[in-house]
Amino acid sequence: MTEIIRTIQEMTAISRDNKSAGKSIGFVPTMGALHDGHKALMTQARKENDIVVISVFVNPLQFGPNEDYDAYPRQLEQDLTLAESAGVDYLFHPEAEEMYPEPAAVTLHVGALANVLEGAKRPGHFDGVVTVVNKLFNIVKPTTAYFGRKDAQQLAIIEAMVKDFSHDIKIVGVDIIREEDGLAKSSRNVYLTDTERQEAVHLSKSLEMAHQIIAEGTRDSKTIEDAIENYLKEHTNGVVDEVAVYRYPELTQTKIIDGQCFISLAVKFSQARLIDNTIIGGVE
Amino acid sequence: MTEIIRTIQEMTAISRDNKSAGKSIGFVPTMGALHDGHKALMTQARKENDIVVISVFVNPLQFGPNEDYDAYPRQLEQDLTLAESAGVDYLFHPEAEEMYPEPAAVTLHVGALANVLEGAKRPGHFDGVVTVVNKLFNIVKPTTAYFGRKDAQQLAIIEAMVKDFSHDIKIVGVDIIREEDGLAKSSRNVYLTDTERQEAVHLSKSLEMAHQIIAEGTRDSKTIEDAIENYLKEHTNGVVDEVAVYRYPELTQTKIIDGQCFISLAVKFSQARLIDNTIIGGVE
Repeated sequence: MTEIIRTIQEMTAISRDNKSAGKSIGFVPTMGALHDGHKALMTQARKENDIVVISVFVNPLQFGPNEDYDAYPRQLEQDLTLAESAGVDYLFHPEAEEMYPEPAAVTLHVGALANVLEGAKRPGHFDGVVTVVNKLFNIVKPTTAYFGRKDAQQLAIIEAMVKDFSHDIKIVGVDIIREEDGLAKSSRNVYLTDTERQEAVHLSKSLEMAHQIIAEGTRDSKTIEDAIENYLKEHTNGVVDEVAVYRYPELTQTKIIDGQCFISLAVKFSQARLIDNTIIGGVE
Repeated sequence: MTEIIRTIQEMTAISRDNKSAGKSIGFVPTMGALHDGHKALMTQARKENDIVVISVFVNPLQFGPNEDYDAYPRQLEQDLTLAESAGVDYLFHPEAEEMYPEPAAVTLHVGALANVLEGAKRPGHFDGVVTVVNKLFNIVKPTTAYFGRKDAQQLAIIEAMVKDFSHDIKIVGVDIIREEDGLAKSSRNVYLTDTERQEAVHLSKSLEMAHQIIAEGTRDSKTIEDAIENYLKEHTNGVVDEVAVYRYPELTQTKIIDGQCFISLAVKFSQARLIDNTIIGGVE
């Protein structure tokens, strides 16, 4: 049975009592519209902890003025059903006024890690992300927190914040969960038209192709980026917003693939900007 | 017996184990050079908690380029003796490289609350304070943290941060501890020459005078500020850096004293800038 908690005070007390009793807490922060990607995080949290908490909070601070804050899907009943099926103990679901009753006196700012990829396209987005995640960490007090690797930049930034702030929390990155045809699961996939949904499969296919090019010996980032971009332009009507090879977790671009890198891409469809990425392990 | 802890990892583990065992932790963050003001904080922490932790860390982030970071008094042996006499369990004493091994990826900024008083004179000072206090809170995980009311602006900013970040920590402000003649205890008092030490008594005397003026019916801030400033100019050779009436905890200036206010003053002597303040309760 998953219990819905709506106030900071109540969630704080529950987590405090569990931690005082020596229990471990697994935490999955979400914005709701839960799908199998989230469920994979919850399932792993359930396996590894005494108590599992998820948050469902559409965080206004991480949306830009022209983004989809108001339109972002909100479906608490379905989310609750999915959370229950994954054995979640507590679903923390505060209103925005509960989380941010007044303007902040102390603000968080992400530096260079936010100047690339999503962060470059969405000014202030990651400031909003770290603000809410830091606050949620203090409320929920997780032993371990679980994040999807689909948002690779977010994961790198959260890991950096945890180190900077000395949060006593283990961060676990969980592999991307995909539809049968390969499309990365995302709450924003519901925005796709039927045609776009057909085309969207080519995001993951382009990354598979990239792996193949690399397996054949190519190490030049530009060559790989161009191949992906051409493939996407050929197979979708979306606008290719970004294709780039970055080091992980430094999030710096690299001309030659070496060490741990990832290929990140973003494609804009009519109502949805989809992202996907793939990790390239330490190739030589 | 007070145990010195030098690494984040070790302090984190000690606090984690104590919190998991249901114990309360009282925490007094300091920059060392401990005096009776600090001892009052430790004594209160000792009375109210199972475990008492103090930190002794001269935080480079809260010193400006022309301030006294290098010269700030460091005297760990004496600090340890005083901590032991107050029954402190753990003295956390990390090096700067332990706390800040690399440039921060995520930084903290104090807004309007830092634009007055000390904050206005010391740009970036309170950003440094909240950065270290937030980090120390995550490492030490206190149930209750104790701060002196002498640094009234610092206390207001810490309280605001705790609220913004939802730290599950009770913040306790402890009254100013004074020398017999009334001088507020401060690690920086050692910088005073003998003559200045004689004159420094007039900081607290000017605040006593202000209380008397208010008791006699004066409510106009400017009248009170002028009286204090004239008194200080007459009785000391220090440079009067600030005399002002502020609301607490809003830290906004007020022309008429009503509600909870405080009078803050700062006087620059040859090697030390001394501050003092007094709370004016809800006068009518």
